[in-house]
Amino acid sequence: MGLLDYFRNSRPDGTANVAKERLQILVAHDRAERHRPSYLPKLQREILEVIRKYVDVDMSAVSVNYEQEESHEVLEFNIILPDTVRHVV
Amino acid sequence: MGLLDYFRNSRPDGTANVAKERLQILVAHDRAERHRPSYLPKLQREILEVIRKYVDVDMSAVSVNYEQEESHEVLEFNIILPDTVRHVV
Repeated sequence: MGLLDYFRNSRPDGTANVAKERLQILVAHDRAERHRPSYLPKLQREILEVIRKYVDVDMSAVSVNYEQEESHEVLEFNIILPDTVRHVV
Repeated sequence: MGLLDYFRNSRPDGTANVAKERLQILVAHDRAERHRPSYLPKLQREILEVIRKYVDVDMSAVSVNYEQEESHEVLEFNIILPDTVRHVV
């Protein structure tokens, strides 16, 4: 099952959608060389900078979750956008 | 179930892991205002540029999937990294 299937399955048809601007970003890295330092923490900062070019994200509305296992690491952002988003561009 | 649970569930313990460098990125956007043009295609280019600062990604190894539904859009990257990754930084 791919990630897109996961999203489809988690959104059953017929569910009333609350109109909410929300951005969810996930970066998953399978690492072959386990002892190399991770660049995901740096990536985290840069991805947020890219996002903020497009939407005026309040940093207090950004939740970041980073998990590192032996050969796998996952970086997850959950961003609640304001109802009336001021678009930067 | 959160995205992290999805990743955990799709990787059962005891499975032999093939050492493979792989990066998977997913951007999911729930849109309140449905008729505003999407910025995800631009985001796609910029996120790839950020990734390529850290790993020497061959563009032929990048597969991009973009799906747009009425109030929801998903951008997905699957990147197979070479076994011996030349790190740019």
